[in-house]
Amino acid sequence: MDLMANTLLSAGASPAMIHSVEEIPEFTPKALGVCINAGTLTPDWLPGMKLAAQVANQSKKPWVLDPVAAGGSSFRLKACLELLALKPSVVRGNGSEILALFKGCVDSNSKGADSVHGSSDAVEAAKSLAQQSGSVVAISGAVDYITDGDRVVCVHNGVPMLQKITASGCSVTALIAAFVAVDPSHAVEATASALAIFGVASEVGMDMARGPASLRTLLIDSLYGLDEATALGRVRINRL
Amino acid sequence: MDLMANTLLSAGASPAMIHSVEEIPEFTPKALGVCINAGTLTPDWLPGMKLAAQVANQSKKPWVLDPVAAGGSSFRLKACLELLALKPSVVRGNGSEILALFKGCVDSNSKGADSVHGSSDAVEAAKSLAQQSGSVVAISGAVDYITDGDRVVCVHNGVPMLQKITASGCSVTALIAAFVAVDPSHAVEATASALAIFGVASEVGMDMARGPASLRTLLIDSLYGLDEATALGRVRINRL
Amino acid sequence: MDLMANTLLSAGASPAMIHSVEEIPEFTPKALGVCINAGTLTPDWLPGMKLAAQVANQSKKPWVLDPVAAGGSSFRLKACLELLALKPSVVRGNGSEILALFKGCVDSNSKGADSVHGSSDAVEAAKSLAQQSGSVVAISGAVDYITDGDRVVCVHNGVPMLQKITASGCSVTALIAAFVAVDPSHAVEATASALAIFGVASEVGMDMARGPASLRTLLIDSLYGLDEATALGRVRINRL
Repeated sequence: MDLMANTLLSAGASPAMIHSVEEIPEFTPKALGVCINAGTLTPDWLPGMKLAAQVANQSKKPWVLDPVAAGGSSFRLKACLELLALKPSVVRGNGSEILALFKGCVDSNSKGADSVHGSSDAVEAAKSLAQQSGSVVAISGAVDYITDGDRVVCVHNGVPMLQKITASGCSVTALIAAFVAVDPSHAVEATASALAIFGVASEVGMDMARGPASLRTLLIDSLYGLDEATALGRVRINRL
Repeated sequence: MDLMANTLLSAGASPAMIHSVEEIPEFTPKALGVCINAGTLTPDWLPGMKLAAQVANQSKKPWVLDPVAAGGSSFRLKACLELLALKPSVVRGNGSEILALFKGCVDSNSKGADSVHGSSDAVEAAKSLAQQSGSVVAISGAVDYITDGDRVVCVHNGVPMLQKITASGCSVTALIAAFVAVDPSHAVEATASALAIFGVASEVGMDMARGPASLRTLLIDSLYGLDEATALGRVRINRL
Repeated sequence: MDLMANTLLSAGASPAMIHSVEEIPEFTPKALGVCINAGTLTPDWLPGMKLAAQVANQSKKPWVLDPVAAGGSSFRLKACLELLALKPSVVRGNGSEILALFKGCVDSNSKGADSVHGSSDAVEAAKSLAQQSGSVVAISGAVDYITDGDRVVCVHNGVPMLQKITASGCSVTALIAAFVAVDPSHAVEATASALAIFGVASEVGMDMARGPASLRTLLIDSLYGLDEATALGRVRINRL
């Protein structure tokens, strides 16, 4: 949550971390978008997650799902599939997470939140999943793929060292939620833009980074300081 | 909790993060001061918070309340008002949080932990709240105001970028608890000093910061390395 | 958890933070090692901790216990002793924590996770505890001591400022779990190596650190970038 909140603050958004079923009906409608993240899942978190999704739907606010380690266990997979059935605007995962959601089965090789598949291995699964679910599906990795089941958009920004920063995936999902909140009717474009901008910030940060911890600091600083010329000059998005 | 603990360690205090009702009666009396923070509130945290406040009171130890996002929902407001009724030595919030406590009503414009009011908008509310509650009330913002209901002290230290660091408000509340623990009979002075020193550390850090994440690092480093001459030369406290 | 996960990622391991009894039986056998940490303990965490230890034992996977603030309260001490009875491969604590486990009584001077005893004060207790429990016992401090009840190995790496970084002790315990996972049959050597390498990374980081927060960043960067020559040249391990 810490890195997610700092990512959102540095990008100009105003995060609030709300978990309690007691306040979701009252607070969630005030938010412009919602991010639901399955990391460190326990059963007592699930009712709040589902309620937040339902309230976001009722309030016509976009919400984004991060199915962290979806293939890690039956409990986690079931929880992620139940959340997916509540129709998020966008689902963002790594290759292994998207494949687990598509296949609906646990991955015996799962390493938890770390992917054991490349993002390109999951493109067809993502297309089918998007068609079935009605959600935009994004796979992050060496290349990021974003699809509504028809179009596939590719993002070529980012650096490999992001994989060495815990919650970097969670943080880009939070940024997707902020971008989609600004323009819910263009969820593919907003998702690709969020992935590209986060990637650009990591590239700018990488110039001075000495390792994963300084990259984490520089990534947030770069996101905060990113100007339009740098963003436009570096963003690499194309159709597949 | 991470930034709060590192703030306390860098300032020479010794934090312990204790939540369980099972150990509060035994552990809390060993502490010199207690900080109770309503962030990421769920109903199962409340009994521990209330018990810690009661044990601190019985042990004659000061305790400080951070009513995070008090106006965000009825549940949260009620919880914060119940904690306030247990007579903290100090309450520290932003303008919106202090106004919500004073008015006793939810803020329909609430953005959660981010204030939608300036600190100066809440000075009269803070004075009344201090008179009613018997607590010292501190409002942090562009100028920080500290009042016991009679005197109002202003602190002019700090930098705007602190608002881009999640838990920076929580961390200064933790520092207030440490300062008040050293001199419980001068809670106004201790609170103003903690706000000023945290602000000075942010000013020193700001000289080298490239954005919110490097400021967060430099803030803690500066707090750790702050010498008496710098502190005395930079602190800006006056009476309203 | 954040610093622990980043420590593991920077060292080349692949962490997953799993707490739920619903998924431990399925996920834990896929892990090569388990770290169980008693920080921020509440009763609802205990069943998951015990189950993870049992599943690790059944799967013949090593697991490591961090008895955070074991002497802080009766509840916490009882929980740590119950976990110890489940026969971890390694227990790593500071002087006060190891003494509390050995004596089986609460420390009236406990400051929580911060030690009030030097590591050398606990060496005899650690030897006895290792003999009784069958676990390797490690005491971290100015000098780290590792014992199987017979041999005592000393590690002379590290810097005092690590004590000003919250969760640095937790993080070295996580690194011990990763090292022991690589070679479970040499738990003393793996534990000493993890403590030495973490200490070397802190020494390398200390050259550029301006305080605890920059040291935290530099520590992770150094751990990530550590080459064999630096490691071998700096590691200081000997027999007592």
